Amino acid sequence: MIQKGLLKEFQKTVGAANVFTDHADLLTYSYDAAVLEPVLPAVALRPTTGEALSKVVRLCNENLLPLTVRGAGTNLSGGTVPSAKGVVVVTNALNQILEINEADMYAVVQPGVVTAKLAAAVEARGLFYPPDPGSQAVSTLGGNVAENAGGLRGLKYGVTGDYVMGLQFFDVNGEPITTGSRTVKCATGYNLAGLMVGSEGTLGVFNKITLKLIPLPADQKAMMAVFDEMENASETVAAIIADHIVPATLEYMDNFTIRAVEAYSRVGLPVDAAALLLIEVDGHPAQVEEDAQKVVSLCKKFGAASIKVAVDAVERDSVWEARRSALSALAKLKPTLILEDATVPRSKIPDMVRAMQDISRQYGIEIGTFGHAGDGNLHPTILTDRRNKQEWEKVEAAIEAIFDKALELGGTLSGEHGTGIAKSCFLEKETGPATILYSKRVKSALDPNNILNPDKIIG
Amino acid sequence: MIQKGLLKEFQKTVGAANVFTDHADLLTYSYDAAVLEPVLPAVALRPTTGEALSKVVRLCNENLLPLTVRGAGTNLSGGTVPSAKGVVVVTNALNQILEINEADMYAVVQPGVVTAKLAAAVEARGLFYPPDPGSQAVSTLGGNVAENAGGLRGLKYGVTGDYVMGLQFFDVNGEPITTGSRTVKCATGYNLAGLMVGSEGTLGVFNKITLKLIPLPADQKAMMAVFDEMENASETVAAIIADHIVPATLEYMDNFTIRAVEAYSRVGLPVDAAALLLIEVDGHPAQVEEDAQKVVSLCKKFGAASIKVAVDAVERDSVWEARRSALSALAKLKPTLILEDATVPRSKIPDMVRAMQDISRQYGIEIGTFGHAGDGNLHPTILTDRRNKQEWEKVEAAIEAIFDKALELGGTLSGEHGTGIAKSCFLEKETGPATILYSKRVKSALDPNNILNPDKIIG
Repeated sequence: MIQKGLLKEFQKTVGAANVFTDHADLLTYSYDAAVLEPVLPAVALRPTTGEALSKVVRLCNENLLPLTVRGAGTNLSGGTVPSAKGVVVVTNALNQILEINEADMYAVVQPGVVTAKLAAAVEARGLFYPPDPGSQAVSTLGGNVAENAGGLRGLKYGVTGDYVMGLQFFDVNGEPITTGSRTVKCATGYNLAGLMVGSEGTLGVFNKITLKLIPLPADQKAMMAVFDEMENASETVAAIIADHIVPATLEYMDNFTIRAVEAYSRVGLPVDAAALLLIEVDGHPAQVEEDAQKVVSLCKKFGAASIKVAVDAVERDSVWEARRSALSALAKLKPTLILEDATVPRSKIPDMVRAMQDISRQYGIEIGTFGHAGDGNLHPTILTDRRNKQEWEKVEAAIEAIFDKALELGGTLSGEHGTGIAKSCFLEKETGPATILYSKRVKSALDPNNILNPDKIIG
Repeated sequence: MIQKGLLKEFQKTVGAANVFTDHADLLTYSYDAAVLEPVLPAVALRPTTGEALSKVVRLCNENLLPLTVRGAGTNLSGGTVPSAKGVVVVTNALNQILEINEADMYAVVQPGVVTAKLAAAVEARGLFYPPDPGSQAVSTLGGNVAENAGGLRGLKYGVTGDYVMGLQFFDVNGEPITTGSRTVKCATGYNLAGLMVGSEGTLGVFNKITLKLIPLPADQKAMMAVFDEMENASETVAAIIADHIVPATLEYMDNFTIRAVEAYSRVGLPVDAAALLLIEVDGHPAQVEEDAQKVVSLCKKFGAASIKVAVDAVERDSVWEARRSALSALAKLKPTLILEDATVPRSKIPDMVRAMQDISRQYGIEIGTFGHAGDGNLHPTILTDRRNKQEWEKVEAAIEAIFDKALELGGTLSGEHGTGIAKSCFLEKETGPATILYSKRVKSALDPNNILNPDKIIG
């Protein structure tokens, strides 16, 4: 329970209509898209101005109340699961695109702007904001920066962090911190924007985000290659990269996922295929034509049973609709879905695909594997029922086996979902103890009372 | 003077032949390429292994000795000017390219590897390391990361920081910190690599650097456009960007610089031109052809007196030789050269060029302006004689006026040279006091004794 005087102060700050203490409301903010125990906050606040946001941060610090800032709550590592009896700040009223500068190719946004809204707004002006996390239709840019969200275009275009030119954020005292610039190059002061990217709300609270835009590619071509052997598909991925082709998107889908997607969306996927590759190349029309031809011939060389090049926007959209529905389709099959994102160097994709099959067999659990093969960032997706305790133990062991395999192959625990709560206990395996200690020194210095989204990343 | 026992410890650690205390040797390490008072260190050390480097860091911390790590000392903001009676660590024995991974497109290097050496080594394998600071022939990759060095290709390809995939560095206790990965996406733990980029040796000491590589562009074309009016040249820069053409390089040179370069290198530059634009487009041959045609027609539309497209590699090389000799050419003219890098949003280049002329007139000092116009990152270069006290006062006032103008135009103090000592007193103008305080909290937490390259960035 929040002390009455403080509750009044919150009401004064954000307006009484933007203070939520009803159990039903708080329940909405007790979880995110990761499979973790829900935790009920004491209050949720919906500031409508930067000034109010700053004051909320200050009040939380002064009153030693844990504060979790939440965009759409789509993150997959528990980064937005609040602390018990803490404060949730919802950013959906801070949802203005403040500026789109066409000449200098940047946008300034509030943290609550929905990713797809910015993408559409800049596309209407011939510009491109490439990062496209799976949840882009609802996810917010503040959340994307906090988690360093990836997406389907990471291979060619990078991730959210690659587009952050500048930030204004509030430190734990509510003071405004300015980092980066509206210029394409900035070597002034510490790269605090770099530090804030992926810091999951633990070091400050975003108020304004300056994002780099680029020209829209002139042309693109989507392809779908069907494989009768899983290995042939994964070898093709490595071959495309080795040939120095850089597709905008290079996605993998195994038979388990193909069948789930087809049952869910009836788009006509080949349900008997062992694996699919969904590929898009973009750029100058001549480049697109040449890359598409190279991709087709590599797919054939590495044993594709067939390959179909989308002839128009409708066919292209259907390729990506199929891919984008994978998560929802798999989620239909079992009560609990765990989407991992352990990532390996790209040439190790064949090894990782084999390992997922082995782990599935070894632990006797269902794993559907799809994802950003071109980045080495597959999504092994475990389907289970959390209430089944016996199976849950096997699931936990399988998850650790997935992480161990990724590290063994020279990879990392998370390509794009962040560390959050879900992976913080595994972090030391990857980085060693000194790195955790170094990180804790940063955290304590910037948040001495540990009120900014506690327990995330470094536990 | 270093205490004898400690000196012996240093000798044991790096080998007696790698400990330098002679005045003549120390003089070499007392300055860098910024115009600042030289400062004599007490000792210079040349570790030949990572283990020795780690131990040196620990010894310095235990003995409260300021430690400045130095690559080639080419930086332009005083980031490698040591502390009085401190330790300089020279990285030129840590100069191994440890791995070039073609399949996964990354390289792992020691900090003392010369930038151009890596660029050539990867180019021989059809790969591309784009960052090309002006000093690339001698500058080191450790120094490039520490300063977040830019270069001529920033417009299309970004700066050093955009290529840092992972780092192993030593914290102030000599403990190894691991951040980032060999994967193209990594959202694991804090983005400490982001924080380290541009931190100028104040938060840790690099041991291994993992750098992203990309495929070599298939084709390129260089052009030189001659303008009778300075304004026409700068308006053309803005027009090219506004047309969504992204040249690999888009450089500006004013008449003052043109004449200096021609006197220095006799490459046949038009000495009566008010300004030149040196432009290179690269990529797929069809894209290159189309972009080159668009650039030519925009140059003409905005009043170019002539434009020459390089017909072969020899002509192309001569364009870039002219540009790359600008700094050396200007340095011949006066005893003291100050190369600034205040940067503005790209559309503000015409305003910035005008402002440089006004400032030159107003303060009665010579300013040659050239640089990365496409990034908004011009190099107003002041020619003076530091021994002339009266003029020096005017120079200092002019530098502040340049910074003020850049900030007024929505820009930043430094696009690529870093803050160092030279700009630390101006930092607050750009970021406000809370950002300095926030940065100081990070610094104190990670280097409580303030021994890691003191006085840089935040003073």
